[in-house]
Amino acid sequence: MTKVRTPLILVNFKTYLEATGKKAVRLAKVAEKVSLETEVCIGLAPQFADIVPIARAVSIPVFAQHIDSVRSGSFTGHILPESIRETGAVGTLINHSERRLRLTDVGATIVRALEVNLVSVVCTGNAAVSATVAELKPNMIAVEPPELIGTGIPVAEAKPEVVKGSVRLVKRINPDVVVLCGAGLTKGEDVAAALRLGTEGVLVASGVVKAKDPYKVLLEFAEAMAKVQRGL
Amino acid sequence: MTKVRTPLILVNFKTYLEATGKKAVRLAKVAEKVSLETEVCIGLAPQFADIVPIARAVSIPVFAQHIDSVRSGSFTGHILPESIRETGAVGTLINHSERRLRLTDVGATIVRALEVNLVSVVCTGNAAVSATVAELKPNMIAVEPPELIGTGIPVAEAKPEVVKGSVRLVKRINPDVVVLCGAGLTKGEDVAAALRLGTEGVLVASGVVKAKDPYKVLLEFAEAMAKVQRGL
Amino acid sequence: MTKVRTPLILVNFKTYLEATGKKAVRLAKVAEKVSLETEVCIGLAPQFADIVPIARAVSIPVFAQHIDSVRSGSFTGHILPESIRETGAVGTLINHSERRLRLTDVGATIVRALEVNLVSVVCTGNAAVSATVAELKPNMIAVEPPELIGTGIPVAEAKPEVVKGSVRLVKRINPDVVVLCGAGLTKGEDVAAALRLGTEGVLVASGVVKAKDPYKVLLEFAEAMAKVQRGL
Amino acid sequence: MTKVRTPLILVNFKTYLEATGKKAVRLAKVAEKVSLETEVCIGLAPQFADIVPIARAVSIPVFAQHIDSVRSGSFTGHILPESIRETGAVGTLINHSERRLRLTDVGATIVRALEVNLVSVVCTGNAAVSATVAELKPNMIAVEPPELIGTGIPVAEAKPEVVKGSVRLVKRINPDVVVLCGAGLTKGEDVAAALRLGTEGVLVASGVVKAKDPYKVLLEFAEAMAKVQRGL
Repeated sequence: MTKVRTPLILVNFKTYLEATGKKAVRLAKVAEKVSLETEVCIGLAPQFADIVPIARAVSIPVFAQHIDSVRSGSFTGHILPESIRETGAVGTLINHSERRLRLTDVGATIVRALEVNLVSVVCTGNAAVSATVAELKPNMIAVEPPELIGTGIPVAEAKPEVVKGSVRLVKRINPDVVVLCGAGLTKGEDVAAALRLGTEGVLVASGVVKAKDPYKVLLEFAEAMAKVQRGL
Repeated sequence: MTKVRTPLILVNFKTYLEATGKKAVRLAKVAEKVSLETEVCIGLAPQFADIVPIARAVSIPVFAQHIDSVRSGSFTGHILPESIRETGAVGTLINHSERRLRLTDVGATIVRALEVNLVSVVCTGNAAVSATVAELKPNMIAVEPPELIGTGIPVAEAKPEVVKGSVRLVKRINPDVVVLCGAGLTKGEDVAAALRLGTEGVLVASGVVKAKDPYKVLLEFAEAMAKVQRGL
Repeated sequence: MTKVRTPLILVNFKTYLEATGKKAVRLAKVAEKVSLETEVCIGLAPQFADIVPIARAVSIPVFAQHIDSVRSGSFTGHILPESIRETGAVGTLINHSERRLRLTDVGATIVRALEVNLVSVVCTGNAAVSATVAELKPNMIAVEPPELIGTGIPVAEAKPEVVKGSVRLVKRINPDVVVLCGAGLTKGEDVAAALRLGTEGVLVASGVVKAKDPYKVLLEFAEAMAKVQRGL
Repeated sequence: MTKVRTPLILVNFKTYLEATGKKAVRLAKVAEKVSLETEVCIGLAPQFADIVPIARAVSIPVFAQHIDSVRSGSFTGHILPESIRETGAVGTLINHSERRLRLTDVGATIVRALEVNLVSVVCTGNAAVSATVAELKPNMIAVEPPELIGTGIPVAEAKPEVVKGSVRLVKRINPDVVVLCGAGLTKGEDVAAALRLGTEGVLVASGVVKAKDPYKVLLEFAEAMAKVQRGL
């Protein structure tokens, strides 16, 4: 179950206090429950210090929010890919809109992720950058128009061309790259709409973490996803 | 015992593979053993993902290598001070030479550390910057000439004026600030020399982490420190 | 007249199109006119590419908006202090809130400015950082609460304690450092209020550059300044 | 003559003192002389403050070393594309290895260059990044393995696969993009070799700027280029 499958719901815990420390572990268990009930793969991207307790507490896939392309050595305060791998995490976000990397570092970080066997999920903000990143052969690309993040305005509705364009360009360049999308997702139908545009999953954050009842929201997301997958 | 006392030996694990994951926990236990035997306070600054396992495994103080001054919210890939506090860590390095901050962020980060009750240890590279930082009222200042880090050339011998100057300027501005020094320390006499220049502890890294026998090195450091403290 | 005297009105052209290229030269001539008429020193900080044409066109002091602490060599796209000096500029802003530097670079840049004989004007955002910077011995400190920049709410009215605190702390540490203040200044009385709090000048931008009639605004500022200076 | 033609010799002045201020103008005139004599297009990328005097002094194309993707407004210390355009410059380097941009900024900066009618020359360090950048539709890509810059080891000899790979991938993605290469070029045969690998020009720096006789070196470069062009 810790293997990453598609369609995927990837929950970014950001630095929300609602998803820090003990509360992060509790939320992880809620996500695991939904994943077990629906058989939809749910991944979690908690803060660095919470990866170990979460990876020990649940059997669904855990991601880092960022890694640096550094190697063993004198890089105080940086995120060594090997350190993340040893925690039991199976993947990492790269270039999230709140942690943008230099162009040269994006490629180097994808290479490092591959070296230590972490699934690379590179975040982009528009179709042109999605195409750009596809040339660097990450495992997944998550397209999120930054201006919609945290707004509750679902990307598949507000900017369908960004999602469709990303899928079309990415698949033409490299059909093995999985495309996720995110930003503004709060309801099951938002998730279904995202899949219908050709994505294989979603990247969500506040819609789940800050929900009154994260279990209910995740269940709605997962059921909508399962339905689309069954062709309904 | 998890309280920070002076004189202090603070061991920075950097991103050394020798101090990552299980090896980090093992090294932490070695440090705890020396601390118990010598009654010298030894602090540890492991990578973020290793803070929880180490804080659970040992009863000596654990530090983060860096925190961001961000608050709960949309700061993917950043280090929330509250997250570090909840791990059981008691302090944090700030502005290490391998993770320099903008001037405005140094003050903001010291304030955030204080808010969540973390001991702030701000790193500087020369006496002028030590004086500068003293105005911002951190708990500790660790002066390390960057050009000596990792060289094995002890700072107290190669650049005594940087250490003495830092102590003099810092104490004049703010006598409550503890001054540590680091860079190039490999022997007990290096540690003793550092204390004799007026510091109240040392910041060490490769000298311990990459030693063939870290127990032996740490014991030598701690005994030298205890000796100076007893006025020998 | 190209020498910097206090009290000083320093006009930051930022990257306003109203103060780019030919329009920058025209604005510089307006400022020179006011300076000649009132005998108040007015300095100008245009964009890098406009320094040469402005320094050739007027005889009032010209500043860079930023310099890097780099030396002759492989630093493509950076601002070499010697290059700025050779343009005829006499000083430079350092660490403006829109171009913050790392703590270690602030000191290094002040040293470089001194080496090439440029007046260093370091920007800060609050009294604690003003004190911090005073330890690094710049020629001037310009305190601007970032939250007031461009608002039209004058700093001397909205945050007098930031200005007074900066003056008090800076002068205690280093009485030779000139303190300017900025943010929100649009009227002569704002400038007078700034001087009455103990500053020796102001740093202004949109209030002049985006004014319908920059001549009128600058004249009002300069006359208010001259009045306070004469003890009126 | 200020129009950019291929094959192109683009001379990066970096922050060399040998190419600052008056010396920059003198070097520009030398380059213009060679260009007039050989009819080979030679472009110049001086420091920002030297663009205006050089653009006034010579009639060969002038480039900026960097632009920011900012717009008119509050961006003190940044490089407004409109400012560069108004100087008479016709193009700009983007993402030089000494001034790397974030992935998202590379695309935004190419778009801004296009808006103000500046030729965009994006620097890359390897073939994968060249392909990546080709998706963003710049006018030119200059591939320079960073480890060879300033070494005198010519890229076409030491890393021909980086050059050939860049040409192949870039042309497949976008045949309109011109590929230059650089690093280590000191002799005419290095330039010829670069063209024979499929590039349409070279990006040079120390090989010209720090030469005892820049005229002689540039002439050798230009004649080698003209020869290859004539099929010799």
